[in-house]
Amino acid sequence: VRVNVDGGSSELRTVWLDDGVVKLLDQRFLPFEIRIAEAHGLEELAVAIEDMVVRGAPAIGAAAAYGMAQAHLQGIAVHEAADRLRRTRPTGHDLFHALEYMSNAIDAGENPVVAADKYAQEDVDRCRRIGANGAKLIRNGTRIMTHCNAGALATVDYGTALAPMRVAKERGRRFFVYVSETRPRLQGARLTAWELVQEGIDHAIIPDSAAGHFLSRGEVDLVLVGADRIAANGDTANKIGTYMKAVVAKENGVPFYVAAPSSTIDFAIPGGAKIPIEERSPQEVLQFGGSPVAPKESPARNPAFDITPAKYITGFITEDGILRPAELRRTAKLPPLRRRKTTKRKTTKRR
Amino acid sequence: VRVNVDGGSSELRTVWLDDGVVKLLDQRFLPFEIRIAEAHGLEELAVAIEDMVVRGAPAIGAAAAYGMAQAHLQGIAVHEAADRLRRTRPTGHDLFHALEYMSNAIDAGENPVVAADKYAQEDVDRCRRIGANGAKLIRNGTRIMTHCNAGALATVDYGTALAPMRVAKERGRRFFVYVSETRPRLQGARLTAWELVQEGIDHAIIPDSAAGHFLSRGEVDLVLVGADRIAANGDTANKIGTYMKAVVAKENGVPFYVAAPSSTIDFAIPGGAKIPIEERSPQEVLQFGGSPVAPKESPARNPAFDITPAKYITGFITEDGILRPAELRRTAKLPPLRRRKTTKRKTTKRR
Repeated sequence: VRVNVDGGSSELRTVWLDDGVVKLLDQRFLPFEIRIAEAHGLEELAVAIEDMVVRGAPAIGAAAAYGMAQAHLQGIAVHEAADRLRRTRPTGHDLFHALEYMSNAIDAGENPVVAADKYAQEDVDRCRRIGANGAKLIRNGTRIMTHCNAGALATVDYGTALAPMRVAKERGRRFFVYVSETRPRLQGARLTAWELVQEGIDHAIIPDSAAGHFLSRGEVDLVLVGADRIAANGDTANKIGTYMKAVVAKENGVPFYVAAPSSTIDFAIPGGAKIPIEERSPQEVLQFGGSPVAPKESPARNPAFDITPAKYITGFITEDGILRPAELRRTAKLPPLRRRKTTKRKTTKRR
Repeated sequence: VRVNVDGGSSELRTVWLDDGVVKLLDQRFLPFEIRIAEAHGLEELAVAIEDMVVRGAPAIGAAAAYGMAQAHLQGIAVHEAADRLRRTRPTGHDLFHALEYMSNAIDAGENPVVAADKYAQEDVDRCRRIGANGAKLIRNGTRIMTHCNAGALATVDYGTALAPMRVAKERGRRFFVYVSETRPRLQGARLTAWELVQEGIDHAIIPDSAAGHFLSRGEVDLVLVGADRIAANGDTANKIGTYMKAVVAKENGVPFYVAAPSSTIDFAIPGGAKIPIEERSPQEVLQFGGSPVAPKESPARNPAFDITPAKYITGFITEDGILRPAELRRTAKLPPLRRRKTTKRKTTKRR
């Protein structure tokens, strides 16, 4: 991600391995402070993922890949490391994809640090291709709405939903982005707005509830969000609030696109109803900056994601092109026959 | 509104006149502090309305009624007082209703303090009838979703959307309320949750964006909100976010009711497109408790209301019963013929 400092700018990744230490751009302090967190071992990294030092499905996947490499260097068994990391956050799919990728690599005798670096680089490459594929949707004057942060900070670099905007900006397009603030943790207001400031892209932050107002008044041409897990049929888990935006976009004839790499697609899950939804601490809703915002007697519910059924999704912007829900299987990287068998077996087990 | 203190409870109205001073339960400090604000003159009262010391369309109407009485006692001309108060907040209709009510009363030589008290008492009576009419929608086990605060605090007392819940609770019903927090000013988390705590009604606060998650999973039986202005065709202006809830409720077959007194209905406006939408300061979105939550370079948009077209509204809970949009005219208190003429003239002027 580009970080503007004192007139110049530098580039940072969200996660990397440095002399055996996993380093993470600590997203809890942005946009006010650039702070690098360090995980010296498996438990520290797992807690960093749980506490959202790093967040965004692809970035969590890369963090887990580096965590697997670090654990191996520290003599921790592959299955033990994978078990701990698997329990950090249940909804996003890239985490499980990365654990499988690294387990296979280590089992095959590959150097785990090289494998983790390769995983991270592949994520960057996928995001750049998503950017190139999605940029054609953005013309001069296009008014885009996004939700949460699906930017460089949600990936290793470059982003998913924000990647087409980066490419369009590089190509000299002028466009505008509505950024919904994304309660309770404000990833839109804190992270997406910050990335757009770094890139010099015009935008305005809106309360999440205001999305419908702008959609219904013809002030939005395109909704563009990321994903945490996509089921085989195209049903998509993403940050809480995505579903309402998708329904209201469809109601107003506004195209709704999901930008995601193939690592986010879970072909083993047939539909959205089977995607587990993480419910986080009520304190994220009941407090703000450590101060209460509600009566002490009031409980809260805090689902972190919701499911957008495929019927509300115009298309998926992937590294392999813009696909309709029925075309998603094109991104499956394993041979179709074997993949289909695996899918059936896993699905049966889950029932 | 009931205020529980030290084991007992007392009753407060949101606004009243005490020895020539307009007193207001200061809603900016709830639920953490019970503070009474004072307006000693027209400008102080107007600023109190603008700063949301008092908010909620019916409560603003009553505050304006007392403001008109106070202004008259202080020798300020009726039209001058009405002009200043009219400029405070543009969307809610009760304000304009109250200004007309008080102007007519003063012109007719009525005692302005008696007239303002009568206006306030009529608001309470309307709310109690709304409660009785709406309570039949609430059974044991009903799971209600509301938005913003349409409670006692939004009226002189008793509330609109919360009135049926008060009556159902008095009748011994057990039910549950999802309270969306209502960014940017958190009237749901701060005010509605507080009222429900005072009444001992089960509830949970949710981020505004989480409404769709619960609606789509069959966890909500009924959405019940207030209104700031209702056009003659039933299109309804209410707190930003109402529209998205209505669309998603309809999409999931969940009934969506608007509770409002006749003072909120504007028969002079044919449809929602003509209702002016207040846009408030971007700082309400960009700051929280005085601290920034976004990059300093980022602008924000902050529409305070949105329009829910009548087609998404199952019914209006009024003091005259539960009405469908087409039946709203029943609540018109003027003779139908004269009212119809007035409507046409006003509409023409606006074009």
